[in-house]
Amino acid sequence: MPRFQSKKLEKEVVLRDPVHEYIHIEDKVILDVLKTKEFQRMRRIKQLGPISYVFPGATHTRFEHNLGVYELTRRICNIFDKKYRSQSPGDGLWNPDNRLLVECAGLLHDVGHGPYSHTFEHLFGTNHEKLGQKIITDPNTEINHALKQVAPNFPELVASVIAKTYSNPQVVKMISSQADADRMDYLERDAYFTGVTYGEFDLSRILREIRPFSGGICFTSDGMHAVEDYIVARYQMYQQVYFHRVGRSMEVILRHLLKRAKLVYKEGQLEVTPSLAKFLDDNWTLDDYLKLDDGVMESNFSMWTNSADPILADLSVRYLYRKPFASVKINKETQNLLPKLRNLIKQAGFDPEYYTDTNSAFDEPYDAYKPTGKNANSQIEIMQDDGNLIELSQLSPLIRALNGTMQGDERFFFPKMMLSNDDEPQIFDPLYQEFQKYVKNGELRYIRRPKKTEK
Amino acid sequence: MPRFQSKKLEKEVVLRDPVHEYIHIEDKVILDVLKTKEFQRMRRIKQLGPISYVFPGATHTRFEHNLGVYELTRRICNIFDKKYRSQSPGDGLWNPDNRLLVECAGLLHDVGHGPYSHTFEHLFGTNHEKLGQKIITDPNTEINHALKQVAPNFPELVASVIAKTYSNPQVVKMISSQADADRMDYLERDAYFTGVTYGEFDLSRILREIRPFSGGICFTSDGMHAVEDYIVARYQMYQQVYFHRVGRSMEVILRHLLKRAKLVYKEGQLEVTPSLAKFLDDNWTLDDYLKLDDGVMESNFSMWTNSADPILADLSVRYLYRKPFASVKINKETQNLLPKLRNLIKQAGFDPEYYTDTNSAFDEPYDAYKPTGKNANSQIEIMQDDGNLIELSQLSPLIRALNGTMQGDERFFFPKMMLSNDDEPQIFDPLYQEFQKYVKNGELRYIRRPKKTEK
Amino acid sequence: MPRFQSKKLEKEVVLRDPVHEYIHIEDKVILDVLKTKEFQRMRRIKQLGPISYVFPGATHTRFEHNLGVYELTRRICNIFDKKYRSQSPGDGLWNPDNRLLVECAGLLHDVGHGPYSHTFEHLFGTNHEKLGQKIITDPNTEINHALKQVAPNFPELVASVIAKTYSNPQVVKMISSQADADRMDYLERDAYFTGVTYGEFDLSRILREIRPFSGGICFTSDGMHAVEDYIVARYQMYQQVYFHRVGRSMEVILRHLLKRAKLVYKEGQLEVTPSLAKFLDDNWTLDDYLKLDDGVMESNFSMWTNSADPILADLSVRYLYRKPFASVKINKETQNLLPKLRNLIKQAGFDPEYYTDTNSAFDEPYDAYKPTGKNANSQIEIMQDDGNLIELSQLSPLIRALNGTMQGDERFFFPKMMLSNDDEPQIFDPLYQEFQKYVKNGELRYIRRPKKTEK
Amino acid sequence: MPRFQSKKLEKEVVLRDPVHEYIHIEDKVILDVLKTKEFQRMRRIKQLGPISYVFPGATHTRFEHNLGVYELTRRICNIFDKKYRSQSPGDGLWNPDNRLLVECAGLLHDVGHGPYSHTFEHLFGTNHEKLGQKIITDPNTEINHALKQVAPNFPELVASVIAKTYSNPQVVKMISSQADADRMDYLERDAYFTGVTYGEFDLSRILREIRPFSGGICFTSDGMHAVEDYIVARYQMYQQVYFHRVGRSMEVILRHLLKRAKLVYKEGQLEVTPSLAKFLDDNWTLDDYLKLDDGVMESNFSMWTNSADPILADLSVRYLYRKPFASVKINKETQNLLPKLRNLIKQAGFDPEYYTDTNSAFDEPYDAYKPTGKNANSQIEIMQDDGNLIELSQLSPLIRALNGTMQGDERFFFPKMMLSNDDEPQIFDPLYQEFQKYVKNGELRYIRRPKKTEK
Repeated sequence: MPRFQSKKLEKEVVLRDPVHEYIHIEDKVILDVLKTKEFQRMRRIKQLGPISYVFPGATHTRFEHNLGVYELTRRICNIFDKKYRSQSPGDGLWNPDNRLLVECAGLLHDVGHGPYSHTFEHLFGTNHEKLGQKIITDPNTEINHALKQVAPNFPELVASVIAKTYSNPQVVKMISSQADADRMDYLERDAYFTGVTYGEFDLSRILREIRPFSGGICFTSDGMHAVEDYIVARYQMYQQVYFHRVGRSMEVILRHLLKRAKLVYKEGQLEVTPSLAKFLDDNWTLDDYLKLDDGVMESNFSMWTNSADPILADLSVRYLYRKPFASVKINKETQNLLPKLRNLIKQAGFDPEYYTDTNSAFDEPYDAYKPTGKNANSQIEIMQDDGNLIELSQLSPLIRALNGTMQGDERFFFPKMMLSNDDEPQIFDPLYQEFQKYVKNGELRYIRRPKKTEK
Repeated sequence: MPRFQSKKLEKEVVLRDPVHEYIHIEDKVILDVLKTKEFQRMRRIKQLGPISYVFPGATHTRFEHNLGVYELTRRICNIFDKKYRSQSPGDGLWNPDNRLLVECAGLLHDVGHGPYSHTFEHLFGTNHEKLGQKIITDPNTEINHALKQVAPNFPELVASVIAKTYSNPQVVKMISSQADADRMDYLERDAYFTGVTYGEFDLSRILREIRPFSGGICFTSDGMHAVEDYIVARYQMYQQVYFHRVGRSMEVILRHLLKRAKLVYKEGQLEVTPSLAKFLDDNWTLDDYLKLDDGVMESNFSMWTNSADPILADLSVRYLYRKPFASVKINKETQNLLPKLRNLIKQAGFDPEYYTDTNSAFDEPYDAYKPTGKNANSQIEIMQDDGNLIELSQLSPLIRALNGTMQGDERFFFPKMMLSNDDEPQIFDPLYQEFQKYVKNGELRYIRRPKKTEK
Repeated sequence: MPRFQSKKLEKEVVLRDPVHEYIHIEDKVILDVLKTKEFQRMRRIKQLGPISYVFPGATHTRFEHNLGVYELTRRICNIFDKKYRSQSPGDGLWNPDNRLLVECAGLLHDVGHGPYSHTFEHLFGTNHEKLGQKIITDPNTEINHALKQVAPNFPELVASVIAKTYSNPQVVKMISSQADADRMDYLERDAYFTGVTYGEFDLSRILREIRPFSGGICFTSDGMHAVEDYIVARYQMYQQVYFHRVGRSMEVILRHLLKRAKLVYKEGQLEVTPSLAKFLDDNWTLDDYLKLDDGVMESNFSMWTNSADPILADLSVRYLYRKPFASVKINKETQNLLPKLRNLIKQAGFDPEYYTDTNSAFDEPYDAYKPTGKNANSQIEIMQDDGNLIELSQLSPLIRALNGTMQGDERFFFPKMMLSNDDEPQIFDPLYQEFQKYVKNGELRYIRRPKKTEK
Repeated sequence: MPRFQSKKLEKEVVLRDPVHEYIHIEDKVILDVLKTKEFQRMRRIKQLGPISYVFPGATHTRFEHNLGVYELTRRICNIFDKKYRSQSPGDGLWNPDNRLLVECAGLLHDVGHGPYSHTFEHLFGTNHEKLGQKIITDPNTEINHALKQVAPNFPELVASVIAKTYSNPQVVKMISSQADADRMDYLERDAYFTGVTYGEFDLSRILREIRPFSGGICFTSDGMHAVEDYIVARYQMYQQVYFHRVGRSMEVILRHLLKRAKLVYKEGQLEVTPSLAKFLDDNWTLDDYLKLDDGVMESNFSMWTNSADPILADLSVRYLYRKPFASVKINKETQNLLPKLRNLIKQAGFDPEYYTDTNSAFDEPYDAYKPTGKNANSQIEIMQDDGNLIELSQLSPLIRALNGTMQGDERFFFPKMMLSNDDEPQIFDPLYQEFQKYVKNGELRYIRRPKKTEK
């Protein structure tokens, strides 16, 4: 491949970052991309969406995360350039010509995300990966314009790295693998902003021990325990943060809220900003997509709190002012109880379609470490002194334990009111009490009915 | 005063906070206030407004800050309850009956803030202090309802603490003085989220050495150096963060943007959400105010990027996509140059009314430590072993140096284009070059004209 | 039991501690014990012994560790006093009368340790547990004198808590169990001073979730992940720090050095300080023991570097100036090679008795988490919402993976010279090369001899 | 100068360091020096001497500090090599040929220190600077041998950098100036190990902004506030740690203890290790000096606790078991009271020569920031955008305040017994009470005698 050379900045630009101390920018193209409106808009899209309702500090955005991924790729490139520079083609070492390419890919890997991506996509058929590709390759975007200053086909190459179709696996894996710059940044960053310290791991050690090989990226054997620690940190973040029952509850509300809004809109009753209207009309362009952000969405929700539709108004209030549903764990057996419970909830005045849901954390878009699954070729390899690779879980009993297991739970969500046991008598108290018989220690359970003969 | 007793929660509720580790809630009223929509809305109002454009991590909101101030008052009360409990009236020690009151005041001290408070107030005549009082005392708010569960006059008492009219100076000073829970929280918090480590100080030591006296709050002599350090941390945060030239530049743009929007609205040309329209009509209620937040504002700006008014559209783009004005330091002498410079800017095609401004950081709403100024009675006192008080700057040469000085600068803001020196020739190059003669090392300067006789 | 009341100090004394911020002392007896010479001498006994040769920051001593354990028991007592105070005998909650007792036991739990305890004990037949008991109960010690001010039998009670014979399991388990104040302090402290960050865990969360039950100490279900994290931190510290091959190598040298010194002493050739002479004479008292510390030992080693005995002189130099043996991993099969290797080493001029050794990390005095082994009754229990206890590994797949496994390795130690491959020819090069054939990737291996028929 | 090239290590060696994360070693000569016995002995010499009696965590040694200074010089060289490499002679930029030299000088700058250097030097006429020079240049040391592998005159060059006689001021100032690698390391390190957080400053920012100029080392204007913060951190460390009254008290005891030992030795009554005996005989060699360390000294003190000389025995106990003298502040006026107080102390049974002392913290070997004093040419310069230098205190009101002031105090030390006010009557109570009349709020004061005429 040709060596891409960006014009260097006269003076390095740095941004303060509480996670990596400084983001260092030496190339003009990086600064140019940073200044585009497609990139700047990510300042208004929270990295963790509704999880900030559970961890108040988690207000950080995709903007900082993308910068952080860029910074990590930059540091890894520094190490590779210095310690593992290819001497001859096919030696399995690092070709520095890829540097600018992988840095841009790191910077832009998430640029297609909109507000509440996963929920929004589900309801409006957008696709953040395809949109990200488009933002990079569409000749009308500022990002495309900035990248093209490097070379006419540079935008396509950057897009191909993110799409994992680029030929050099070292470049691809630095951004997309079980231990890539993306995950390293978001784990550290999410831990920092939530305050959940067990998400921290020894990043500086990991960076010391990471190295290229012919098939991608691996770690030297001295780094084995640091990688172990990183996997455990990931596990903890999933269990403690990403799968938090209240965060999922807020996401359930969000989904129902948007679903209801579509219905009300079809009935011609919805006040809505022009940018969102395009999506409700199912007639949107990339420009419309780029107008969306958390604030625009919440600004619509805010208008909807005055909606004549009581369900839409109520769900909008619940979302904006953090009034989550309650939830209980369910399993294959106890989910047979759900029709009965939904019926009680309906009798208590809540439409089950909008006021109940089940959610399985395993369905969440965070995948655990699965070296033998569909991510097979992204398993973590440890390089022995003699250059042989051994897959991580072969070396570590800790990782072996986590390997291939499914952690998480399935939950049934419903209005908190159903758990009410206020002193003051309420009209639906008998319903509530009946409902509560099925709940114990945060789980659903079958009620043992007294045998008739016992009477 | 009567001892206010809140119903205790069955089980303490804790929130993760990256700054104070945990926010502990033991009283039902605190949790009730937390759940109100007036309080929850603060999740959508950034603590540092446009400063997040300079320090990308600074996305934290007034929600967390208010919780943090509450937590610090709670901890101070714990210490006072244990170590300095009044034994007899008039002994100058701490009356634990005030505990719930000061905790609520801490929690609510900033509840009147809206988006970009200071800029917004300037243009729309709102007043966050009066609005905060109203949110607490207006019988229609959820906060008022929650507080009233403690006692009918409890909302008014909480409001009086925030208004500094409450009789007990210990209670008032814990929230409002040169070393109060408010400032301690925001300095630590802003340092954490910006990543500017010199904002950190030894909070745990400060909390160890704080104590009540008849006139308010002071520190024991063992804590003198910790207080010194806190004042220096404050100084650094002002110089490094709050007065940052780019943050001020974004605020200048915001001000001009809103000013222009008012004009365009009057001409009937502005697309605007209903909540903001009320303010442009100068016909708003508390409910309208409570609908505003950063997202609503930015959602309007986003619509305005398509405005037919080119200045409004441009300023909206500049604000949303971070395109700050450039700036130079000015002083009493060099500000005489401004008319000439504004003229050059006008010739280059920019309306000086919207594209230039001056801003003095001393005018910013952060006041430095001034024991002899209008905050005279909030000076920091150090209690000697024998109980006598000595004002801090009498003891510390460091603080003496800062005392009464005005730190900061005055700046002139203008379009960056004026500093352009691209290789490619541009039509206004002669204008730019003329302009640039007046700028050296970030300051304005007079140009020394060659004397005619020298020819 | 009677409630022990110590005279309170007029003013709380605090010590700065980088791990827990402050050590708080409110009781006169704690301060009195701290000031005794038996306690102060621990300032001269490193917590991690020769491990400071591997992690240069690990110079911290048993003095700080004992203070740290005291501080953690104090904090746990604070929580128990507040949240879990027994209301009626037999309710399984916390009896605050035990507070002073458990604090003193925490403070003194390691007071019997001397320099390089485990190595020293092996060679001189001392026993730090028995000596600790004696230091507390012997009427001639300052510690005994200080404790007696509380009650005549107080020293014996403190000793019984450390000996685990005290009747109340909550008191005993707070100091001695799989998740006790002792381990919590040393993990955090060793992580801090070595700089090995994966030893850190969420201590503040653990302290929030710890609680008493009738059988001792357990954790609430909300704390499950924090306890998981603590166990993983332990695992990492064992693998990374306590079992480090170079630390073990230095310990091997120390053992041989002391063994050799005994021999040389018997031959009447050893210059030695009076305190150590008593141990070489096998005629020592408690006072002699209390005179020993790291400095006294190393001061003897320093004299011995001039010994006429070349082995003693060489081993002394090796220990003082950090010249560790090399080592390789061995297993059941490859240890059959050791006689052959020892023979090569002997031919190269090293006495195998003093210049080789095997060391199994499993034999080290740190035991991993084994709920079904001899520590069966110290397994970690998690209390469910309904009060039932579930053993940790039943709940956590991570802990289940570690449970009952033996982590670590067995190693063969020998002079580094055997691995020499300098360019300059040396007389023993053929020996070295023969030796090196058996070593690959840090392990011993059998050499595959070429089959004769292949010729 | 010739470019010194060290053999590079095949694989970089790293040491864990809790302050700088890792110490990186790439050159064989650095590793060779590290392994010498003269360097390794520093593991047994505490960085802060008796200050560890006040801050228990401060057990770190000169070994780690020297490594830390090396690491900082290495990092500064990395920056200079990359950003400020000289293009032509005389351009005032950095000549990379000096790299190895300055790294070795950083590593060895304190190698001449022995135990309790300043106290020891005062009594035994040793001089750590001259001894350091000797250790480097004496052909019999291992360090000299290691350095000579680079070039025959390399040891002398390294010594000349430490002696500040080397011709290139950039090299000299990197090790010895008001903001050098030495101070940066010890401030950060002492803050970390004492736990005194206000000693921390923004090292990574300082390293970003440091740069060479023709006259040495300066900082860019963007780094001004970081340098300010570093100076304030220094101030705080002096006031809080280095000048702590109890640390100084222990140093007073040490001095008297050694003085007394000399006397007792002359009387032929002292049991002493051979290494120390040479110094008491005033007949020592470099080898003898290199045998000394904290442990050897304390091992002697330990023997002396059994001395027949009661003063020596008592002072030894006081030092080993931390029984400091009390102290009060004195000034020019109140020091006239000292003869009277010494007399009272003598009457109470203490020999004033060994049981009292005055100590002025200004005399301590730590000099504050004095740009116009004897360190005139080491003042801190800030480089403006146009390349001009401005001395720091001209720019910073904070530093101007500290500039040229003398911070600290003078104290009178005496046995704590003189402040005794136990309930139990003691024989010297009247003496104690008389003494205590002169002490108020930690200071000496004149007693106002009632006028006779008032009767």
